[in-house]
Amino acid sequence: MVIPTDRSYAETLDAADSLAHFREQFVIAEPDLIYLDGNSLGRLPRATVALSEEVLQHQWGQRLIRGWNEGWFTLPERIGAKIAKLVGAQPDEIIMADSTSVNLFKLAVAALREKPGCTRILTDSLNFPSDLYILQGVIDLLGNQHTLEQIPSPDGVHGPADAIVATLDSQVALLTLTHTAFKSSYTYDMPAITAAAHAAGALVLWDLSHSAGSIPVDLHGSGADLAIGCGYKYLNGGPGAPAFLYIRRDLQERLKNPLTGWMGQKEPFEFGHQYQPADGLRHFLTGTPMVVSLALMEPGLDLLIEAGMDNLRAKSVAQTEYLVGLWEQLLAPHGFTLNSPRDPNVRGSHISLGHPLGLGINLAMIHEMQLIPDFRPPDNIRLGIAPLYTSFCDIHEAVMRTVQIMEERRYEKYSELAPTVT
Amino acid sequence: MVIPTDRSYAETLDAADSLAHFREQFVIAEPDLIYLDGNSLGRLPRATVALSEEVLQHQWGQRLIRGWNEGWFTLPERIGAKIAKLVGAQPDEIIMADSTSVNLFKLAVAALREKPGCTRILTDSLNFPSDLYILQGVIDLLGNQHTLEQIPSPDGVHGPADAIVATLDSQVALLTLTHTAFKSSYTYDMPAITAAAHAAGALVLWDLSHSAGSIPVDLHGSGADLAIGCGYKYLNGGPGAPAFLYIRRDLQERLKNPLTGWMGQKEPFEFGHQYQPADGLRHFLTGTPMVVSLALMEPGLDLLIEAGMDNLRAKSVAQTEYLVGLWEQLLAPHGFTLNSPRDPNVRGSHISLGHPLGLGINLAMIHEMQLIPDFRPPDNIRLGIAPLYTSFCDIHEAVMRTVQIMEERRYEKYSELAPTVT
Repeated sequence: MVIPTDRSYAETLDAADSLAHFREQFVIAEPDLIYLDGNSLGRLPRATVALSEEVLQHQWGQRLIRGWNEGWFTLPERIGAKIAKLVGAQPDEIIMADSTSVNLFKLAVAALREKPGCTRILTDSLNFPSDLYILQGVIDLLGNQHTLEQIPSPDGVHGPADAIVATLDSQVALLTLTHTAFKSSYTYDMPAITAAAHAAGALVLWDLSHSAGSIPVDLHGSGADLAIGCGYKYLNGGPGAPAFLYIRRDLQERLKNPLTGWMGQKEPFEFGHQYQPADGLRHFLTGTPMVVSLALMEPGLDLLIEAGMDNLRAKSVAQTEYLVGLWEQLLAPHGFTLNSPRDPNVRGSHISLGHPLGLGINLAMIHEMQLIPDFRPPDNIRLGIAPLYTSFCDIHEAVMRTVQIMEERRYEKYSELAPTVT
Repeated sequence: MVIPTDRSYAETLDAADSLAHFREQFVIAEPDLIYLDGNSLGRLPRATVALSEEVLQHQWGQRLIRGWNEGWFTLPERIGAKIAKLVGAQPDEIIMADSTSVNLFKLAVAALREKPGCTRILTDSLNFPSDLYILQGVIDLLGNQHTLEQIPSPDGVHGPADAIVATLDSQVALLTLTHTAFKSSYTYDMPAITAAAHAAGALVLWDLSHSAGSIPVDLHGSGADLAIGCGYKYLNGGPGAPAFLYIRRDLQERLKNPLTGWMGQKEPFEFGHQYQPADGLRHFLTGTPMVVSLALMEPGLDLLIEAGMDNLRAKSVAQTEYLVGLWEQLLAPHGFTLNSPRDPNVRGSHISLGHPLGLGINLAMIHEMQLIPDFRPPDNIRLGIAPLYTSFCDIHEAVMRTVQIMEERRYEKYSELAPTVT
């Protein structure tokens, strides 16, 4: 079917959206602002504001050090168990700790030490550069005995799933992939890739930063070994929110955390002088958790749990399909290419549009049109859809404003500017 | 002079205290509660509550992803420069990152790689167990080529400064000490120890967790190589506040961070696939900073800067001397020993009192007497004095309540209990 391009159709879709009321649970400070960057920083839940009063005034201000016995000490597990519900893990398979990068370091080192003699680390050309940096540091630290192979995407959009499977062999210690690619939004078939890696004897580590809260994931059911992810994208945990890590239960005792800190010590308040790893996942903690940032993640997670990942996914697919339909009719004529998969079954919740003038267009969107996407070089404008609060009218309006930029050539004055942080 | 034991003397001291008004800058939710655990978790500054509104509602809620360009990206340096004022560092020698333990890992690995062939790591028996755990993990990760030697304290109270100096030789890669010992409060002579280590060719790493904000430190003037510290004790940054790390300027480019993350990448928004360390201290960042927890540190630091470390130290010495004077007359007769140095010149801002029934006494303090110290096994009750908000009357009242516990044998019903987290 050809998607109607008039605003009234978007209004009809919003009226029929059973998740539409969740938008009211978020702070919308500027109603005219179209925010399509929830894949980079999720919006602020209203309940988070209320909780911050409780965490600061009551827990810290009044209870003071007693707060540790009254919930802070077990926050890493308690928040982790809520994320577990969103990504198909058991409650004791996810714990909150550090940043995504530090967690990748811990798990990658642990995995490589678990596979002595296996020297290949596989990833793809679509992975986060940040993950590559950590892996390069790990290889250097372990004496440059490992190689990091980036299997190239066939088209810069789709993940090289077949080529990965074809190159797997017994020398592969670790296959690590970002489940939903940050640039193209391509999403791997987690069960199939995991099974293939296991057949070759490799461990698999999934970066879920662009998947958690946007697409159903079944970590446990897939038999995934390891996973990491950040808290500040679709999980709405706030800027730089703490990260999570997953280790399949039967691997938890076997793997060694190289960052042996006191929060991972078996009896931290005995103050013994020899490190003894705590049971379960807890020995993958290191230092003291950042309580305020960690506690404030909870309202965002509760909203996702209440909405349900299957419902969110259905809306996300409808919304990305709607956006692709509008792109085809209204933006392709202006030279925009679809840099995400056309098939929603292998696509996450953002759409990348390419344009040779992408950077200038992106800056015009932000500075003139009250429209916030983000830009990933060389030419990708990412339009992130967070089904908890993105409306169909948001998407329609974003496309119409983009058309206006093109018709009025508003990108011209930005064409010389350097990229911004967004 | 014999210190008067009547409350009116404490009131006289408070009336003459030029820093007394700073107490009003903190949330005091329970006026009857005597809080002597600011060395473990500092109180909540009133300005932090106001700032949390700004950070949540305005920066996150309204500005959304634009917050990164409007201050978040440079928060690690900006907050670090404020801590630099408190510990005698140049503004570009301190940066905020991760937890104290993760920072110790980064700096210890960097230091050991800087000294190939040197296999000795020196510390003392007074150091934080958490620091020992990290060092044990580092040694294991680097292939067990290094030894960790814990030079014993001669009496469990004073640091073994002479023995450390005597054992230094060219095989020592790293000397790492906690500047103010967490249990006894002993404080090392940083310039002298650093000079001795440098004469032997070793690098020196100071843990300032119990010094920053409580005692003047001159990192740069001492020629110290490396330092770490936490944000949640005397810095009043909140539970699990981010940690800081210091690298002397001329070492910053030479040392390699093993946790090579995207926040330490030279041009993170070019998304290149090869890690290139950023200039200066920034390449010791790893993942995305936890913005909310980090931003909320600022009011506590501003209060310390406004009060001035020399003024704070003068008050701290007067207060610990006052407490020791009261101990001698009122608590020693009940069997309490002074487990901190008698000489305030080698003592930080807390006083440890030992008692064979210490755990039960500590629990009676917390659960019956509205008095919060903390307990460190086997028998240390730590009484932390935070001169920004601790009054002389607090100290007097704490001692009187302790006397009451002893006279009424209130510790008896707690003698069977396990230690609490505090």
